[in-house]
Amino acid sequence: MTTAHDEGKEAVRALLETVRAEGRSALTAPEGKTVADAYGIAVPGEALARDVDEAVLYADRLGGKVVLKIVSPDILHKTDAGGVIVGVQGAAEVRAAFCTIVESAKAYAPDARIHGVQVQQLLPPGQEVIVGAVTDPTFGKVVAFGLGGVLVEVLKDVTFRLAPVTADEATSMLDSIRAAEILRGVRGAPAVDRWALAEQIRRVSQLVSDFPEIAEVDLNPVIATPDGAVAADIRVILADEQPVERRKYSREEILTSMRRLMKPQSVSVIGASNEQGKIGNSVMRNLIDGGFSGEIHPVNPKADDIQGRKAYKSVMDVPGEPDVAIFAIPAKFVASALEEVGRKGIPNAVLIPSGFAETGEHALQAEIVEIAERHGIRLLGPNIYGYYSTWQDLCATFCTPYDVKGGVALTSQSGGIGMAILGFARTTKTGVSAIVGLGNKSDLDEDDLLTWFGEDPNTDCIAMHLEDLKDGRAFVEAARATVPKKPVVVLKAGRTAAGAKAAGSHTGALAGDDAVYDDILRQSGVIRAPGLNEMLEYARALPVLPTPTGDNVVIITGAGGSGVLLSDAIVDNGLRLMEIPDDLDAAFKAFIPPFGAAGNPIDITGGEPPSTYEATIRLGLEDPRIHALVLGYWHTIVTPPMVFAELTARVVEEFRARGIEKPVVASLAGDVEVEEACQYLFERGVVAYPYTTEKPVAALGAKYRWARAAGLLGGGR
Amino acid sequence: MTTAHDEGKEAVRALLETVRAEGRSALTAPEGKTVADAYGIAVPGEALARDVDEAVLYADRLGGKVVLKIVSPDILHKTDAGGVIVGVQGAAEVRAAFCTIVESAKAYAPDARIHGVQVQQLLPPGQEVIVGAVTDPTFGKVVAFGLGGVLVEVLKDVTFRLAPVTADEATSMLDSIRAAEILRGVRGAPAVDRWALAEQIRRVSQLVSDFPEIAEVDLNPVIATPDGAVAADIRVILADEQPVERRKYSREEILTSMRRLMKPQSVSVIGASNEQGKIGNSVMRNLIDGGFSGEIHPVNPKADDIQGRKAYKSVMDVPGEPDVAIFAIPAKFVASALEEVGRKGIPNAVLIPSGFAETGEHALQAEIVEIAERHGIRLLGPNIYGYYSTWQDLCATFCTPYDVKGGVALTSQSGGIGMAILGFARTTKTGVSAIVGLGNKSDLDEDDLLTWFGEDPNTDCIAMHLEDLKDGRAFVEAARATVPKKPVVVLKAGRTAAGAKAAGSHTGALAGDDAVYDDILRQSGVIRAPGLNEMLEYARALPVLPTPTGDNVVIITGAGGSGVLLSDAIVDNGLRLMEIPDDLDAAFKAFIPPFGAAGNPIDITGGEPPSTYEATIRLGLEDPRIHALVLGYWHTIVTPPMVFAELTARVVEEFRARGIEKPVVASLAGDVEVEEACQYLFERGVVAYPYTTEKPVAALGAKYRWARAAGLLGGGR
Repeated sequence: MTTAHDEGKEAVRALLETVRAEGRSALTAPEGKTVADAYGIAVPGEALARDVDEAVLYADRLGGKVVLKIVSPDILHKTDAGGVIVGVQGAAEVRAAFCTIVESAKAYAPDARIHGVQVQQLLPPGQEVIVGAVTDPTFGKVVAFGLGGVLVEVLKDVTFRLAPVTADEATSMLDSIRAAEILRGVRGAPAVDRWALAEQIRRVSQLVSDFPEIAEVDLNPVIATPDGAVAADIRVILADEQPVERRKYSREEILTSMRRLMKPQSVSVIGASNEQGKIGNSVMRNLIDGGFSGEIHPVNPKADDIQGRKAYKSVMDVPGEPDVAIFAIPAKFVASALEEVGRKGIPNAVLIPSGFAETGEHALQAEIVEIAERHGIRLLGPNIYGYYSTWQDLCATFCTPYDVKGGVALTSQSGGIGMAILGFARTTKTGVSAIVGLGNKSDLDEDDLLTWFGEDPNTDCIAMHLEDLKDGRAFVEAARATVPKKPVVVLKAGRTAAGAKAAGSHTGALAGDDAVYDDILRQSGVIRAPGLNEMLEYARALPVLPTPTGDNVVIITGAGGSGVLLSDAIVDNGLRLMEIPDDLDAAFKAFIPPFGAAGNPIDITGGEPPSTYEATIRLGLEDPRIHALVLGYWHTIVTPPMVFAELTARVVEEFRARGIEKPVVASLAGDVEVEEACQYLFERGVVAYPYTTEKPVAALGAKYRWARAAGLLGGGR
Repeated sequence: MTTAHDEGKEAVRALLETVRAEGRSALTAPEGKTVADAYGIAVPGEALARDVDEAVLYADRLGGKVVLKIVSPDILHKTDAGGVIVGVQGAAEVRAAFCTIVESAKAYAPDARIHGVQVQQLLPPGQEVIVGAVTDPTFGKVVAFGLGGVLVEVLKDVTFRLAPVTADEATSMLDSIRAAEILRGVRGAPAVDRWALAEQIRRVSQLVSDFPEIAEVDLNPVIATPDGAVAADIRVILADEQPVERRKYSREEILTSMRRLMKPQSVSVIGASNEQGKIGNSVMRNLIDGGFSGEIHPVNPKADDIQGRKAYKSVMDVPGEPDVAIFAIPAKFVASALEEVGRKGIPNAVLIPSGFAETGEHALQAEIVEIAERHGIRLLGPNIYGYYSTWQDLCATFCTPYDVKGGVALTSQSGGIGMAILGFARTTKTGVSAIVGLGNKSDLDEDDLLTWFGEDPNTDCIAMHLEDLKDGRAFVEAARATVPKKPVVVLKAGRTAAGAKAAGSHTGALAGDDAVYDDILRQSGVIRAPGLNEMLEYARALPVLPTPTGDNVVIITGAGGSGVLLSDAIVDNGLRLMEIPDDLDAAFKAFIPPFGAAGNPIDITGGEPPSTYEATIRLGLEDPRIHALVLGYWHTIVTPPMVFAELTARVVEEFRARGIEKPVVASLAGDVEVEEACQYLFERGVVAYPYTTEKPVAALGAKYRWARAAGLLGGGR
């Protein structure tokens, strides 16, 4: 069965072949019209009049006012040539305009070939918008939407999606611009036809998805009215060359090799050393000290024994079937050792050494990738600090082992950031399932890790630092598969032009346009952390917090001043303060002094005993209309910090035992004892911070963003 | 000599008297025109035609196309009445239009009194903008500017200034909106006449400043073209009532009483107690334990001796001339004790008790204010945690004394926030000159404190938490006097609608519109902290950092990944990465590995020894073209954290001894030892943070914002 879409596709395919055959990359206006018609993209009615009588005929058929434009392959700037007349109506006017245009064009360019005059319907006034599609270096075909004119050009009020989009996604774009209200009609103006506008977006996105060779499509402007959306102009540009397809692994292949990497039975350390200060020494010591229960086989041609274990001259001599070869040798020796790893049939190589693409040694990196592909070895790195799989007690890094197993997997493209992850996790006692360095990402990258951690039962949350994505679409696919199961936090470095430039000098990666990254990461459901510290704090807090089941957030505070700042933070983080129903208000009021303020925040006032905190927190957990609690504690003699912490943890635990789990976060204002109280609370499932009203609410906001993206709150992605 | 301004003022005064006499609050269009003409506010030429011949005459005089509008006190909606015709030209058209309008108006409202038809010049097309003035509850007369239409209404792209503005301030408003570029001409459109537009703003601001009884002026729209800026419409609204003037103190009076409050010889504690758990007990103990060297006189009618000091039945019995009476008695006893304080001639009362306006007891608060004014006592509070003047070892609070004297004075409106200040300062060893609770601000408020701390030689920086300002103009005045001498950080709580509502329930204060606060605080040169933690961190960092003398910031980093994030932070904080000249680039390159990246960030790479950090930091301090350094440290075995900290502190100190002081901030990525290294660096003048690339740059950004506001960097306010 041939559908209209198939027919349209065939028509465009034939047209593009002609254009290519002529060696052109830009389509003419009539060709653009053909493409638009083939995809049902609404454009003004038009026809090419070869003589004045045809012009009169076509103008009459189109009805109303028309625009006449010269059509000549030799005249690019039609207006300069006097080749455009707007608002012509009736036979006499059309005749006169036709002649004027042709004469003007001839006078402007006497040798120009003139194909005729285009007679085009004049569009009614309406809201000008722009619909376009571009080829992003990271994400491929991307569709864009914005209001026309200054809003796009000066205020950059544009939104992006991966092409193709569904009708729903296209509609969501209308709401994603800052000036979205305008489309709904402001100052008495009528709303535009949203369906028609969304269709223009959807059809453009389908066109570029069907034809990868189309580099760019621009409908600028589209005139949107209450009765439709018509593109006044369509511009189509073809690409010079097609991007090289990256080698793909199936989901099963990824999971198989990742399982052996993250849960190995046997590892071999190539370049293991007895010499203090060498990386091969640190890695061996950390593997042993970390308590890895599998086999550890050092490889060193110059030693018989490394740190009490038999050393082998070559990885070929290692007994059994190692799952991982960890490289701690200089870059120049990697290739030959990797050949041996391949011959030995080891599926994973962890390449700690630097001295590859990041120092300009691109050929060396290409060589090891070639060897790995030939043998089917997956590479982690090179240029990394190693990796740490805590539940296996596998500390294959040059940093000392870490003693708290937990739910968050952290990855970083940069070694420095990896060290910050380690230090932060250690000092805050963050529960970690894995820490992985990605470095140059010569092979394994974020989408492989997401695929694994998405399945890993020890991992409840994934946090990733990245400077670029090798394949944005593969990442989005992995993220969309993972997010419904667990939150994914992303710190995208190189957000700003200066940052992107710095990333360029660092990894040689082309940092994509941040606006595209931002929209598409959001669409994929990941939580974007604005900075390093936020990424670390979200990683620490998200696995601790239960998932909210609704939008009603209530603040209970002993300090009115904290209540105000917490309310600001609620708004900043896109959360909603619950409108407290009268009966609930009365119930809270029963516990607080007459001059305290119920409502929301519930201000229990500062001089209250522990029982007031306890009674109000109990009520907040008990009432099913409340979905999350934000506590503001004020240090007083009557209720010291640890008393507050203990009662809060006890009540939360009691409700949890009854099956009532709500996220509870707390801001503690007080003297230094509040720090201990916060640590106590955090370890018991209450996300608590001292000296800040912002951080606890930001953590709650991140959890809500995830719950929404995962479809657990009713809201869409 | 009578100036044009004086004459204009007289004309407006006379007009407003007439309007008031008629009991109206809105001016008619012709009255608006009179006001505009009196102040040189450009409006279209116009005249009131009482008959058709006059209309023809006036239209001819104005030239070009005109607009005709009905003038009737009984017709408010002229268009609905068919009372407006646009674009009329020539005698015949004017005659026809005049008749049509009058007939339509009569048909619409047969009883309407018709004064005639206004003949108004039709303005040319141009950029529509809005110029207005309103009366803000906090700041009084405020002038506003924005682009017309959706940009103002949907995107809220408006900027505010205190009225009156100078010509320079008015011009700065044109650059303060997000869409500022539009006024300079985009997409081939010509730039508007900036001078003419700024004059419209300046003149409106002068008008409302001259006439406090004008509540609101609206020029909407003003049509700005390359040749001028003309208000198509002027609307003037009078206020129903005038605000009550607040009692003012002279600068000298403020300094005199503040000096006795902050540097007292003798204090009396009313309600001093031997009973543990009482506030009067804590305050006495903290005064004594804090080591205050002046006299401390407890007052308690029921005891002879409090904590080893003679107690007095009444403050009247206390020997000498106490400078401060500290109240630690219940609210209901405050009034009578305050009478005695007044009779004793004590100039300052510190009112710790709560139970006044914040609990709805407005009458009680009014009573104590009346007593204080009668006796000339200045009040701090009520409803506060007290105050702490560290250089006097005067800990008049219910929190235990704090042991680090330093340069920052911190104030808070809320007790909870005050406790957070205390805990944060203690744990981070922040050097503090004073901590002051302001509570209900029945008398002393932020402007009094700013005035004092601006003069206090022990204070280098002032940080204030506030929910409202009693008198925005007095605050701005105090801030403008202080900022050239030292930085002022402000955390304005209640930024959001939810926060403002919470502030309402907390203090009963009407939180002003945050957009107005934001613009006017920025104009006054204060550094606005986005949240509590930022306020605290700025307070800690600003006194430590030297003032930069230019805009050239250089990043030196061992971790390329940190370099990228630090670059992002540079942009986020409005700083500028220096473009490194070739000779300087070569000089840096001499110290770093060949694969390291010079440029900016200067990436020295991760495996480098201490000497590479030292050589590059030295060069950064030595070269006079560089004004500030941002260091990115990466924990390695080769350069451990404390080695980096010691070398950095040593080099910075060496240059300081040579008179070269530049701000140096550092982000330390590494294992937990980096925390100790950061504390070491902070104590030696290098603002350093672990696990974050954002905080050190935010602190540097705050210092730069201040330096700019203080006029130390060439940039204006």
